[in-house]
Amino acid sequence: MSVAPGQGPVGLGSFAGRLERLVHARQSSLVLGLDPDPDRLWTGARDAGRGVAPGPRSPAASAALAVAAHCRAVIAAAGAACVAVKPQLACFERLGAPGWEALEATCDAARGAGLLVLADGKRGDVPVTAAAYAQALVGSVPTPYGPVAGLGADAFTANPLLGRDALEPLVRAAREAGAGVFILVRSSNPGAGELQDRPLASGGTLAEALARVVADLGGTPESPSGLGAVGAVVGATAPAQLARLRALMPHSVLLLPGIGAQGGRIEDLAVAWSRGPASALVSASRSIAGAAPEPGGSEADAARRAAEELRAAAWSLAGRGAGGDKIAAQ
Amino acid sequence: MSVAPGQGPVGLGSFAGRLERLVHARQSSLVLGLDPDPDRLWTGARDAGRGVAPGPRSPAASAALAVAAHCRAVIAAAGAACVAVKPQLACFERLGAPGWEALEATCDAARGAGLLVLADGKRGDVPVTAAAYAQALVGSVPTPYGPVAGLGADAFTANPLLGRDALEPLVRAAREAGAGVFILVRSSNPGAGELQDRPLASGGTLAEALARVVADLGGTPESPSGLGAVGAVVGATAPAQLARLRALMPHSVLLLPGIGAQGGRIEDLAVAWSRGPASALVSASRSIAGAAPEPGGSEADAARRAAEELRAAAWSLAGRGAGGDKIAAQ
Repeated sequence: MSVAPGQGPVGLGSFAGRLERLVHARQSSLVLGLDPDPDRLWTGARDAGRGVAPGPRSPAASAALAVAAHCRAVIAAAGAACVAVKPQLACFERLGAPGWEALEATCDAARGAGLLVLADGKRGDVPVTAAAYAQALVGSVPTPYGPVAGLGADAFTANPLLGRDALEPLVRAAREAGAGVFILVRSSNPGAGELQDRPLASGGTLAEALARVVADLGGTPESPSGLGAVGAVVGATAPAQLARLRALMPHSVLLLPGIGAQGGRIEDLAVAWSRGPASALVSASRSIAGAAPEPGGSEADAARRAAEELRAAAWSLAGRGAGGDKIAAQ
Repeated sequence: MSVAPGQGPVGLGSFAGRLERLVHARQSSLVLGLDPDPDRLWTGARDAGRGVAPGPRSPAASAALAVAAHCRAVIAAAGAACVAVKPQLACFERLGAPGWEALEATCDAARGAGLLVLADGKRGDVPVTAAAYAQALVGSVPTPYGPVAGLGADAFTANPLLGRDALEPLVRAAREAGAGVFILVRSSNPGAGELQDRPLASGGTLAEALARVVADLGGTPESPSGLGAVGAVVGATAPAQLARLRALMPHSVLLLPGIGAQGGRIEDLAVAWSRGPASALVSASRSIAGAAPEPGGSEADAARRAAEELRAAAWSLAGRGAGGDKIAAQ
């Protein structure tokens, strides 16, 4: 891994600045979710796991090779319509050490395709442990044998339940690396409201309190449109909450998962782009990699078409909709 | 409610059953936290990273070898006073794939010393991703090349912010594996109260609402003392909340981190053992592995002594204190 500590994962300034440039260059606010299931890989990738190397290979090593080949193929097919990949760490961790190598290979492939890497692990722990997670994701750890670089992600997701002091080491490390953090504010699962929509005695919901923490941690905006390093995860399945949460976090990039398989609809999300096309990112995974091929067509063609359709749908809101107008009027 | 041995879903094969047997056999409610920092390893372990194999080794591979050697040495020194190890996943992940191998080697060493493994990663995500985390920690994932086994932990920690539907796949997978889950209810960091102690409009605090979720997910007790597969993390730094949280989760094993370096004191925790000596586990890491050697003494001797002192202090409450009396009176 060739990541220079302190210079940002690709040495090009802040996360928000890099993101904004890429969003405009590609006319895309789409993130390619990578949640590889070893039993549902594209046909060619399954064969890659069988390999040609001599000797028996462990199931984990074979599966990891296949997962990496699958992710490379999905990136090659759908990456051009996107600005970032969002690898789901759980899907790689379940293959052990070979799975972590597949994750690194996937991040390399994404960078090679000009994409940012948003590592999705929803990490969160007490401050000393949070600092270790930050080393794993966007930093490096000093050792007697030399520094060991982490994943070199451009941004990562975090869980805020432990409070501000546990988030601060993550935010600090991200800023030092020129990376970003997406803090979970309102998730996309059907049961998300049970806790996150609970009214607090002091007024507002838990999700709104989390949004205030995000805004407080945000600090100085880093991009031309006034976007900062501290973003938020807000499920695309909760459009009713979106306007309020957006208003509480005016400088945050919103990461909106839950389109497609989970039931979220892009057309319900226009308010998210209040600060221009880079101010919100729509994430989709199963609806791209799992798109049904036409008769005689390939999985790659289906994924390319699905990604382009999602890109265009999001851009019609992000690039020319309410958000674009507001930015133009500023 | 008490359950005779063998009547739980997996009888004495259950996590609570195994834990209870071990706690009584070792007269210990102590968990050995393993949070290895590559720059603060024991002397002998640092040398292990330099190794004797021919050819240059990457810093990550060297550091991972040293971390594994350190953890083996800490287990050898302090393990006999404990019932489980609690490896902090962040500390291994920051070394990439070699770090994951060091984690697996550490778990093997712990099992070899008769200890349970509590994987501390505070994972939590939407249901489909939660299921993948469960495969990584206590299950296996089917692949075209055969099943790939996960870490094989006896229990793991989880973050409940996403709600009950996101916890259910974790609890289900744990039960199927005869494993346990420790759900974060009240953490040990100084800022934990900012969100977790927030009063809800419906009454009680967020931590109390989380405790109710834990109790609801708990299901049928699995051990002779009526302990279940769903435990809770409650910081030893919050003794004021402990009695109330214990009352809300009568069948849960409580995992109490934060002793020592974080400021928690064992003598404030007696109420946690209301259902006998296995009903709460005190976790310590830096105060054991980082115990200062006496002049001319070894790090291992210092760790052994520190662990034995903590074991005895905890057992004086757990084995003969309020909890023991209550169990005897049932």
